[in-house]
Amino acid sequence: MHVNNRKEEKMYLEKINQPADVRNLNKEQLEALAAEMRTALLNKLSKHGGHFGPNFGMVEAIIALHYVFDSPKDKMVYDVSHQSYCHKMLTGRKDAFLYEEKYDDVSGYSNPEESEHDFFNIGHTSTSVSLACGLAKSRDLKGEKENIIAIIGDGSLSGGEALEGLDFAPELKSNMIIVVNDNDMSIAENHGGMYQNLKLLRDTEGKAECNLFKAMGLDYLFVKEGNDVEKLIEAFQKVKDINHPIVVHICTQKGKGYALAEEHKEQWHWCMPFDKETGKSTVSFDGEDYGSMTAEFLMKKMKEDKTLVGITSATPTVFGFTEDKRKEAGSQFVDVGIAEEHAVALASGIAANGGNPVYGVYSTFIQRTYDQLSQDLCINNNPATILVFAASVYGMNDVTHLGIYDIPMMSNIPNLVYLAPTTKEEYLAMIEWSISQKEHPVAIRVPGGAVISDGKTVTKDFGKLNQYEVTQKGNKVAILALGTFYSLGQEVAKEIAKETGVQPTLINPMYITGTDDKLLEELKAEHQVVITLEDGVLDGGFGEKISRFYGASDMKVLNYGLKKEFIDRYDVNEVLKENRLTKEQIVEDTMKLC
Amino acid sequence: MHVNNRKEEKMYLEKINQPADVRNLNKEQLEALAAEMRTALLNKLSKHGGHFGPNFGMVEAIIALHYVFDSPKDKMVYDVSHQSYCHKMLTGRKDAFLYEEKYDDVSGYSNPEESEHDFFNIGHTSTSVSLACGLAKSRDLKGEKENIIAIIGDGSLSGGEALEGLDFAPELKSNMIIVVNDNDMSIAENHGGMYQNLKLLRDTEGKAECNLFKAMGLDYLFVKEGNDVEKLIEAFQKVKDINHPIVVHICTQKGKGYALAEEHKEQWHWCMPFDKETGKSTVSFDGEDYGSMTAEFLMKKMKEDKTLVGITSATPTVFGFTEDKRKEAGSQFVDVGIAEEHAVALASGIAANGGNPVYGVYSTFIQRTYDQLSQDLCINNNPATILVFAASVYGMNDVTHLGIYDIPMMSNIPNLVYLAPTTKEEYLAMIEWSISQKEHPVAIRVPGGAVISDGKTVTKDFGKLNQYEVTQKGNKVAILALGTFYSLGQEVAKEIAKETGVQPTLINPMYITGTDDKLLEELKAEHQVVITLEDGVLDGGFGEKISRFYGASDMKVLNYGLKKEFIDRYDVNEVLKENRLTKEQIVEDTMKLC
Repeated sequence: MHVNNRKEEKMYLEKINQPADVRNLNKEQLEALAAEMRTALLNKLSKHGGHFGPNFGMVEAIIALHYVFDSPKDKMVYDVSHQSYCHKMLTGRKDAFLYEEKYDDVSGYSNPEESEHDFFNIGHTSTSVSLACGLAKSRDLKGEKENIIAIIGDGSLSGGEALEGLDFAPELKSNMIIVVNDNDMSIAENHGGMYQNLKLLRDTEGKAECNLFKAMGLDYLFVKEGNDVEKLIEAFQKVKDINHPIVVHICTQKGKGYALAEEHKEQWHWCMPFDKETGKSTVSFDGEDYGSMTAEFLMKKMKEDKTLVGITSATPTVFGFTEDKRKEAGSQFVDVGIAEEHAVALASGIAANGGNPVYGVYSTFIQRTYDQLSQDLCINNNPATILVFAASVYGMNDVTHLGIYDIPMMSNIPNLVYLAPTTKEEYLAMIEWSISQKEHPVAIRVPGGAVISDGKTVTKDFGKLNQYEVTQKGNKVAILALGTFYSLGQEVAKEIAKETGVQPTLINPMYITGTDDKLLEELKAEHQVVITLEDGVLDGGFGEKISRFYGASDMKVLNYGLKKEFIDRYDVNEVLKENRLTKEQIVEDTMKLC
Repeated sequence: MHVNNRKEEKMYLEKINQPADVRNLNKEQLEALAAEMRTALLNKLSKHGGHFGPNFGMVEAIIALHYVFDSPKDKMVYDVSHQSYCHKMLTGRKDAFLYEEKYDDVSGYSNPEESEHDFFNIGHTSTSVSLACGLAKSRDLKGEKENIIAIIGDGSLSGGEALEGLDFAPELKSNMIIVVNDNDMSIAENHGGMYQNLKLLRDTEGKAECNLFKAMGLDYLFVKEGNDVEKLIEAFQKVKDINHPIVVHICTQKGKGYALAEEHKEQWHWCMPFDKETGKSTVSFDGEDYGSMTAEFLMKKMKEDKTLVGITSATPTVFGFTEDKRKEAGSQFVDVGIAEEHAVALASGIAANGGNPVYGVYSTFIQRTYDQLSQDLCINNNPATILVFAASVYGMNDVTHLGIYDIPMMSNIPNLVYLAPTTKEEYLAMIEWSISQKEHPVAIRVPGGAVISDGKTVTKDFGKLNQYEVTQKGNKVAILALGTFYSLGQEVAKEIAKETGVQPTLINPMYITGTDDKLLEELKAEHQVVITLEDGVLDGGFGEKISRFYGASDMKVLNYGLKKEFIDRYDVNEVLKENRLTKEQIVEDTMKLC
């Protein structure tokens, strides 16, 4: 795969300024283009990190799509954008893959602000078929004729929205092409009964009568050689301008063209910067992380409680369940595949029958479960535990993966106890409490940023709900510093003491879902200002509840958190400053009220 | 069906105090029991209203389930509870169907507080398989052996959560019985490609190779005679104690046993009280309703704009699209079936390609789309219109169908413009604006209660976001009365003027999603108290944003709305009183601050 002559490496890719340029190449040239694209991917990803496996497997398919279809008139929608890198290379954005200084010119996801060839910002899975159905419906209403193509990976198929979309598509009764990229892998291995059917279809070269897609009412075409550009062109030409919805099931090899990625598919789904020769990460993390800590803790508990069961929706390592740990946990670990809604309902069902479920999930993906949290879990008040990771401005910073909305999304659902630990010790104590109680559905907002450990033994009974902890008694100013922002609260407290000579009160609220009315009432006696700090958007969040509490009183309240807006590829420090979330700004504001 | 001798009617049902009593009856007696159950259903529903069709079709199946399985050791989970009435009759709750004075002793949904035979409060569709998977997983972890049975209607199958559940079930590799009640109907007619497959399976008596359930990895058993108690018993006996998941596909007749309901299946899915002989409703509604008004308005607009398209997720009449109107709208009306997630993504896709989608949906069901609102719609800022119905304390009052959570759920998502009209005129003007603009995703919170019309022409440009309307200038007290509660605001204003001689300022905020900072700032000059009124839970809602705005000022703020709690079968006036939402209480609180 490595081509020695660097000039030659870019013989074709360098000249692709638009999809039409792809159509001028012959078969050999298209294959050379594929090799160049892989080299570019390898170079960029080794320095920059990103989604590796999905893009390497789809090089030929993307070339063939642009060879056959006429983008942007014909419209392609890439599910979860996992296969969008190659699409970007062929739609005027090659420089962002060829030249290191331009790597950051494009996002890792499809993005209409970048190009007329992208129709949506997409970052969550399982949405492409439904979005493409919308494009197609609109086309039909307008009496137009273009092709609409959804490209979806096998792993994304298990998500409810994708299945709803597949079921609906036949109702369109008009052109709609659904390319199913079957690489026999989700992020981790695939889970779910439908993967047996995909295997059957692969084994029979699409000929098996029992066919998930046909059962959904869709026409079907099987393409065995999903990494053969000629075969793919042939297949796509066959379905171009078709007058009804069809699934084109292509079999590709995840990570194709990079031996290590072909072998270790899960590991190479996404990568940090790495050494191209050895595949070893060039970025090293020192110290503890909340993920590994969680798995270790739960593994220990699983031995004592055979009904304790870890649940993931296709991202087991978010809470430290690497392959070896999953094996060790055996039936006490369940990967439901990409199916967050099912995960929450499953947890509720397990708890209802006396089991002890712990669901580990990213903040951005728990968004997919509002109704399950409300209806399946909280109305039934079942004692499941949900661990919410990357719920922080310090989490992922792509617009589609923000971890700053879980507080408004979850905390206003009745019965849920949503906790915000500030240290490792509190975090583990909260899990311990949650898995030992049978009264409440509990979610824990795992702190963002580096692990903070103070070595303190936590003896608090979390079952006495909504009792905040006063960690420093003072007067005049009280600071309610929630979760990750507790350390910011400490700094602010220090600074205020320095500036005014008066020690403020510092409070670790711990409970996001309720107010400590007694404490808040007591604060009135010796405080004039209450400051709230939270690591998330202000709207619908924690601080507003405190403002409401003091609405009719003389207490002045300052709420700090993030503005309600979609931010993309941001610099944390800039965002904090824009939201007046620096120590200096907070102290400045406070001084005005003192 | 009508048995003349009233005493005879209850010969068997009267003696069923527990499921074991069913097992003492022979075939003829079971059939007589079925007839008695239908009579009881007919009597109760004709006086009380409720879910008609689904329960009438499932009488024999529920009898057979309780004949074969040993509830509550064996556990049954009824999807959306639509088939739970008969289950309730056989599990100690017959009196609530036999005696009018006891009709209200049970809810219309499965309910663990009522009986050990119910395992969850269930009211939303498509959740049973996932919840049952949880029960089964827990059973396996505990090393127990009972049967777990999910009972799901064909209409609920299209919901994403149900499909995620079906896909996951085979992973259990243990006992799990999924009874699919196929009556060839959702609430309205079924929509989606999978229904072709169900038809194929019915036509081939389950023998077709292409089988959705098998494609999902599930074992499969077909029962043609879904209203034959003997055949059903036979089938259930066959799958009892099975060691892997299996779908039992039973074909039933919706509304069976009541001629009118057999014929008009959609109409008789759910009923108001009616005359048993004629089937005519005994409750009459006078005057306008927002549903019909909406369909009429949109039908007119559809003629002018061929890209305008109404979307429903299986409840077309919520915004007035009765069968005749749907026919008239033709391709400009889409029923996606029970698939709310898909509906929102579809709307986003339609808007992205220049079309003009309007999705009409109940408040309680828009809950199923948080991630689609955020990711598919709002990040992409596509100009779709969503009409949110029954979003009010005056809406449905079952715990699973509350319409008081949409404000916290939706309004804290960036980019969305969520509007709260107070009159018919404002409502139609808002739709008119929304479908004529291309800048924002817009949701409109259709007022609860009776239609209020003041005949005023609305000239406001809603595109100038977050400009509240001052409808009465006054001083000292300002009342921000949102949406449905605007009339309460008017009453409070009058009362305060009467009590104090000072005219308060009255404001119609209209915008739920943003604050009118200029106006709020100006209020400081001549007002000491701001009151907010909203028809929904306070937590994460509109009023808290106002409290936050005034946090650092001297303005006193009183937020009125509902407490964050799950309330069930409530009396509106009691709930309002408990939340200090009466005119008198609000004035009393305000006087204390003036």
